[in-house]
Amino acid sequence: MESMFKTVQRKNDGPLSERVAQQISSLIKEQNIGVGDKLPNEFELAESLNVGRGTIREAVKLLVARNCLEIRRGKGTYVTQELGKIEDPLGFDYVKDKLRLAKDLYEIRVQIEPWIAAMAAERIQEEEKEELLNRCAAVEETISAGADHGASDVAFHQYIAKCTHNDVLPEIIPIITYGVDLFTRIREKEPIENTLQYHRVITEAICANDPEAARQGMLDHLKSNLWCINRLETMDLQPDTGNR
Amino acid sequence: MESMFKTVQRKNDGPLSERVAQQISSLIKEQNIGVGDKLPNEFELAESLNVGRGTIREAVKLLVARNCLEIRRGKGTYVTQELGKIEDPLGFDYVKDKLRLAKDLYEIRVQIEPWIAAMAAERIQEEEKEELLNRCAAVEETISAGADHGASDVAFHQYIAKCTHNDVLPEIIPIITYGVDLFTRIREKEPIENTLQYHRVITEAICANDPEAARQGMLDHLKSNLWCINRLETMDLQPDTGNR
Repeated sequence: MESMFKTVQRKNDGPLSERVAQQISSLIKEQNIGVGDKLPNEFELAESLNVGRGTIREAVKLLVARNCLEIRRGKGTYVTQELGKIEDPLGFDYVKDKLRLAKDLYEIRVQIEPWIAAMAAERIQEEEKEELLNRCAAVEETISAGADHGASDVAFHQYIAKCTHNDVLPEIIPIITYGVDLFTRIREKEPIENTLQYHRVITEAICANDPEAARQGMLDHLKSNLWCINRLETMDLQPDTGNR
Repeated sequence: MESMFKTVQRKNDGPLSERVAQQISSLIKEQNIGVGDKLPNEFELAESLNVGRGTIREAVKLLVARNCLEIRRGKGTYVTQELGKIEDPLGFDYVKDKLRLAKDLYEIRVQIEPWIAAMAAERIQEEEKEELLNRCAAVEETISAGADHGASDVAFHQYIAKCTHNDVLPEIIPIITYGVDLFTRIREKEPIENTLQYHRVITEAICANDPEAARQGMLDHLKSNLWCINRLETMDLQPDTGNR
């Protein structure tokens, strides 16, 4: 197995456990260990990399913290499904002025999501239309049930991005929709009904392969949300963001 | 100090060290411990959180792995400058088809960066113009020196985003410019001279507060790069991405 580790060691500084973590990480990137696969055990790794088992254990912990590996008790160490993807990758949780953050995010969403919706209308596959309708309905259901619809809302917007068949866009959506649920909590009944109506218009436009209607629907939807944020600002309120 | 920890524990599952890491993380988010500040020492943390020092040590390691804390030998544990921001947050290093990734990224860049350049032209402050010119010159210098200009190129595009005064956009640039250096390495002399010319046009347009010229300059620049990527594809080449 030694030959697997030839191409590594790009950073030669830092603690040994960090360097070993990068070697293991390279093993996953460059060799045939994929998502969901089991890693060689501690003994094998220690021997191949010529380090102690304690160092392997430290390195594995680093990669668990970075969502690259997961330890299944009594089974071994596995490559995660969501390989290397971090919740809150830009550290928005640590931003103090959440209202400013929300405005910055909406400025981006207003620019990018109408384009995403239009592209989805052009590229959606027949078999994806049913799932899009399901995601749209799921938001309606969580709202009817009186539950916080933040997560289902993000899932709806993310599925639209998935229909573009650009693999990066669905990864960008959770970043730019950060804090959606801050606003779902403070909104009144009327804007929520607007949301449902807009979602329905967008979904139908995409399923009808009508890029212009999809773009306009998304633009109207986001501008209506932006109106809520600006209203918050005039009230000089910071949304409660303690537990996102 | 106990009162500091009232609002935490949003996830009650997972190992103890993970929960303690979230408590420390909440302490940073919600209390008055900011970027660059020193954390209370191991003894104090262990006492306030009513856990052993070993658990504190494990929790601190998790937060170091996530780029929230750094340990300065002999000095103590500090909150990092780049709080919680992760290099390669979307796990692009692990994507096998780098050419497809590059095309997906350029599709996004062509949409978003001309808008960013136009907004920079509208919002740039007088005192930012000199720094923008410096960043533009820095790319020229690295190329003249025969060095890989990937990092200086990203820094140039990132500074344009900074001039929009939208705090999120400069964080998005390192994500969507992922792999810029893959292409700087394989390009020939001619397109590199094009790059410099485009950068100069964009910089001048922004400094002249001319949004339309800035938008057009950026669009031409990115489309020219896209042409290189498409040429790569016809050659059926995958850029060598082993050591990004």
